[in-house]
Amino acid sequence: MTTTSTASARATRYGYLGPEGTFTQMALLAWAESHGGEQTAYGSVDSALEALRLGEIDAAMVPIENSVEGGVSATLDALASGDPLVVIGEVNVPITFVLAAPAGVALADVRSVGTHSHAWAQVRGWMDANLPRAAYIPTLSTAAAAAGLADGGVEQGYDAAVCAPIAAANHGLEVLAENIGDRSEAVTRFVLVARPGTLPERTGADKTTVMLFQRDDRAGGLLELLEQFAVRGINMTRLESRPTKDSLGSYCFSIDFEGHVLDERVGEALMGLKRVCAEVRFLGSYPREDGAPVEVAQHTSDADFGSAREWLRSLRRP
Amino acid sequence: MTTTSTASARATRYGYLGPEGTFTQMALLAWAESHGGEQTAYGSVDSALEALRLGEIDAAMVPIENSVEGGVSATLDALASGDPLVVIGEVNVPITFVLAAPAGVALADVRSVGTHSHAWAQVRGWMDANLPRAAYIPTLSTAAAAAGLADGGVEQGYDAAVCAPIAAANHGLEVLAENIGDRSEAVTRFVLVARPGTLPERTGADKTTVMLFQRDDRAGGLLELLEQFAVRGINMTRLESRPTKDSLGSYCFSIDFEGHVLDERVGEALMGLKRVCAEVRFLGSYPREDGAPVEVAQHTSDADFGSAREWLRSLRRP
Amino acid sequence: MTTTSTASARATRYGYLGPEGTFTQMALLAWAESHGGEQTAYGSVDSALEALRLGEIDAAMVPIENSVEGGVSATLDALASGDPLVVIGEVNVPITFVLAAPAGVALADVRSVGTHSHAWAQVRGWMDANLPRAAYIPTLSTAAAAAGLADGGVEQGYDAAVCAPIAAANHGLEVLAENIGDRSEAVTRFVLVARPGTLPERTGADKTTVMLFQRDDRAGGLLELLEQFAVRGINMTRLESRPTKDSLGSYCFSIDFEGHVLDERVGEALMGLKRVCAEVRFLGSYPREDGAPVEVAQHTSDADFGSAREWLRSLRRP
Amino acid sequence: MTTTSTASARATRYGYLGPEGTFTQMALLAWAESHGGEQTAYGSVDSALEALRLGEIDAAMVPIENSVEGGVSATLDALASGDPLVVIGEVNVPITFVLAAPAGVALADVRSVGTHSHAWAQVRGWMDANLPRAAYIPTLSTAAAAAGLADGGVEQGYDAAVCAPIAAANHGLEVLAENIGDRSEAVTRFVLVARPGTLPERTGADKTTVMLFQRDDRAGGLLELLEQFAVRGINMTRLESRPTKDSLGSYCFSIDFEGHVLDERVGEALMGLKRVCAEVRFLGSYPREDGAPVEVAQHTSDADFGSAREWLRSLRRP
Repeated sequence: MTTTSTASARATRYGYLGPEGTFTQMALLAWAESHGGEQTAYGSVDSALEALRLGEIDAAMVPIENSVEGGVSATLDALASGDPLVVIGEVNVPITFVLAAPAGVALADVRSVGTHSHAWAQVRGWMDANLPRAAYIPTLSTAAAAAGLADGGVEQGYDAAVCAPIAAANHGLEVLAENIGDRSEAVTRFVLVARPGTLPERTGADKTTVMLFQRDDRAGGLLELLEQFAVRGINMTRLESRPTKDSLGSYCFSIDFEGHVLDERVGEALMGLKRVCAEVRFLGSYPREDGAPVEVAQHTSDADFGSAREWLRSLRRP
Repeated sequence: MTTTSTASARATRYGYLGPEGTFTQMALLAWAESHGGEQTAYGSVDSALEALRLGEIDAAMVPIENSVEGGVSATLDALASGDPLVVIGEVNVPITFVLAAPAGVALADVRSVGTHSHAWAQVRGWMDANLPRAAYIPTLSTAAAAAGLADGGVEQGYDAAVCAPIAAANHGLEVLAENIGDRSEAVTRFVLVARPGTLPERTGADKTTVMLFQRDDRAGGLLELLEQFAVRGINMTRLESRPTKDSLGSYCFSIDFEGHVLDERVGEALMGLKRVCAEVRFLGSYPREDGAPVEVAQHTSDADFGSAREWLRSLRRP
Repeated sequence: MTTTSTASARATRYGYLGPEGTFTQMALLAWAESHGGEQTAYGSVDSALEALRLGEIDAAMVPIENSVEGGVSATLDALASGDPLVVIGEVNVPITFVLAAPAGVALADVRSVGTHSHAWAQVRGWMDANLPRAAYIPTLSTAAAAAGLADGGVEQGYDAAVCAPIAAANHGLEVLAENIGDRSEAVTRFVLVARPGTLPERTGADKTTVMLFQRDDRAGGLLELLEQFAVRGINMTRLESRPTKDSLGSYCFSIDFEGHVLDERVGEALMGLKRVCAEVRFLGSYPREDGAPVEVAQHTSDADFGSAREWLRSLRRP
Repeated sequence: MTTTSTASARATRYGYLGPEGTFTQMALLAWAESHGGEQTAYGSVDSALEALRLGEIDAAMVPIENSVEGGVSATLDALASGDPLVVIGEVNVPITFVLAAPAGVALADVRSVGTHSHAWAQVRGWMDANLPRAAYIPTLSTAAAAAGLADGGVEQGYDAAVCAPIAAANHGLEVLAENIGDRSEAVTRFVLVARPGTLPERTGADKTTVMLFQRDDRAGGLLELLEQFAVRGINMTRLESRPTKDSLGSYCFSIDFEGHVLDERVGEALMGLKRVCAEVRFLGSYPREDGAPVEVAQHTSDADFGSAREWLRSLRRP
């Protein structure tokens, strides 16, 4: 656990999935309000969220979805159980890899490369084209690969590391090649998590995250849940099934959808889900990073709901 | 227009689809609260409802649905346009036909029979078996057939009438045969209609009637309307399509469903319909005549809605 | 029963809902292939279809849907039971009324008007504006009103008749006013019915008519039927509920939809309905009168079905 | 890559996700037909499936779903792209962990424990209760943790390993404690994958696996796919969303459902999906390991489909 303490008028304390030099730290740096705050790296998503639950920090930045790897199970599961936490913001970080080595090592000298297996999978094309004979040495993270070289990579058994640009900079390594990922458009989405108590204000360009637990494992169960969204014209942007850990084939669903809990259509959909689900875990409403306004489906605006409610009231008190 | 005035402490004035001696009058007599009130027969559903709208009467009994003939178009259409009216109660009347003739006419004497064509269709079996050679003379109503005999049936060209028991009694005819309908279980459902202003109280065994006008004539339009009921577990008991009279193939829907406008699930469904329909005409919530309690689908009780609402409130004010 | 025999090379015998001079005869005259055939008027839809079932005629023209009155129950019910019959064509006839009287009667002379109650309802506006003091005398049909005048209207108790132009012509009456209907766009749709045996060829602008009987009276039953259409992108153009005559609240559904039984998507939908319904009565596929081509929803063309079937075959025989 | 060659009349060559001593090898051993075959361990799911595609082996056993961790992304993704492969069988393996150490090490001596982070997460409870002060040393796999001790664990920095029973046996370690997982019912599901060409026969207790790619990212898209199952009464047993790797928020769906491609209802559902999806990747029909017969929903049996097809044929050739 590493704490980067900085002079700060606002005493806010941030945690993130470490070590230093990962894309998660880049996400936290991209969150303007975190500047001047205390930033603490944690060894796992679990430990960062545990610290948050214990009040040791005020917010934690953790990865939730990767355009190549999909949902981040550790985060989804840590949010799904334990004391409630809520997402209060999101940051999308383009995933770009560099090949880095200690000063004095040239590309031609590289015979072995250390990195995390996920990163290795994403630079396969570049490696085949440029270092076809290099051996691959797995490490526990991309930042660990960079750190290993700083500490004296010879004993680690590799000459260069595949890592994030920030890790190369942190460890004083030289960048031999930039942007070596096979999919230049790879992006990871991070969320800033906090204890319940503040609800980010409604901006008109919001997302809401929930975890839904079905009552039982019947045919059409998921269909019934999705209809709660469809009948109110709500668009989902992410759906992940996660095992409930009770038995094989028992699932719950982690869902992001457009809109804010204060929107009428979202409120009604949440109430519908609350009725038909065994449990609905509300994981926050927060502004989209890209600021793209929600496309409100016909007849589902707050004004539409408001006039329908007025009409109902008039029927009930004729 | 015939008014049967009776001494009455309660000044309530009732209208019904006449003439006297029809099943509609039987329905009104079965409505206990009408006893002692003034009862006026009207020549058509339209004229009865017009009198109601003008304040000449306080309530009107009209047929809405027949187990053999289906929906009664005149009633459905008269409720669908003009100043709002609401149903405040229902009465089901078994439809039983008698063969009636003036005193002195025996069954063997009957060579021709007068009645309304609908009634004729419902006694075909009995006639084929018992009076196979009798000629059929169409009349404007079953009551008119009976009245014609009272006035001197010879000139009418028929010897006996197929009519309701009450019509035979009203006109002093003798009953040659009872219960001659081919379907002994035939039933007509009548509704008591009033001007808006009082909402019958919720009994737990209620029905609600609405008329729904679609926004446009698109594929799946009706499906979308029905989903508003399905997603709240509401059971329909009658659905009739009626032309909107604008063009061939443009329809609106007359629907009865279980529950009362004060039920939470009904309120939410009505709001949903209000949003997606061009127009929703609320035609009343009222107790079922048979008193059969609504079977509330799982997770759709008022308590379920209430706790979902409380939960939503807690999310919105964390 | 009146037969208009004409010399005819083709021996085809047509029946229609009479009497002569009704809109139904106009529909039959509009059916080009009927020219030169024998044309027989029947007193009811039932008797026309009975004659067809008995082989006395080869086809019958009957009304099925009216833009003002809705579905024609007698036709829907007669097709729904008894030996199978199928629709082989449709004709839409604009409903225009004239006020007709014997020669020598001027508009100013008219103090009472005879017609069928449905027609009277449709000319109310014109009457209020032009003959506000005229008495209304109900007759058994509009054609009967005209016929009554021809026979000497004085005894009938009315001076003029509201009827179809063809009825005025047939009976040598003079037309005092044309086009007196309150809704100038009123249309009745007629269908030409035959015994099964020939399937009109597929034109790409076809309709199919079915009668669906639900297995039981459960919530969501109709929804389940409509989904069979929706999941194959099929558009309904008419839906009527009809009582099954077993008990109040037990309904079957008469449905027209776009497409021909030979279309792949229609075939699959019909098979789906056959599986989930207690009974599906196929009432024919036939060309639309207006020739408007079916708008085939995305991914539901015969080519789409054909390539899906090829693909499935390849999976099954790898 | 380690090959365990055994004398074999049947020349079948099996691959599995190695190293030796993992649960995947246990799954392969549980597959009776593999006995006597050649068994080759591969370093990754990707490399095992690549060897299968190249014809170096005839079948590969890989994990697909874990009751604690969820879908196995590497397997889902490797099946979703590249030359087609199909699942031909499944094996469920209970996941039980042991604490193992070299001979002579007692429980009281254990101050540090090596294992994979996923395994560590699953034995947290036991560790807190029995070895609360033990340090955790991450390794690349549970088998690697065991192998490290065999090679002389002192240099590895840990005294004992958490691993599968088979790994302890393979490396001659002693078991200090059995069944130390926090969820005794944890299970991993493995699938045996082959090149297309043989379709396992239909047993009545089958599953089918597909990967569905949506045409576009519209609201209700998933709902439309699920309705293809629902309308044919097909029950899903697993649904995983996976990123398509094109952009954040673009997903495809990996789905297992009950039934065999030779079942009529499954065939029709697959054709429906083929029409509405951008791509359907068929990944095999195969017997369930537990032999539980498919519960065929009402009106969806092959007999129901067969008689509906006969009926349709009779309509088309009247």
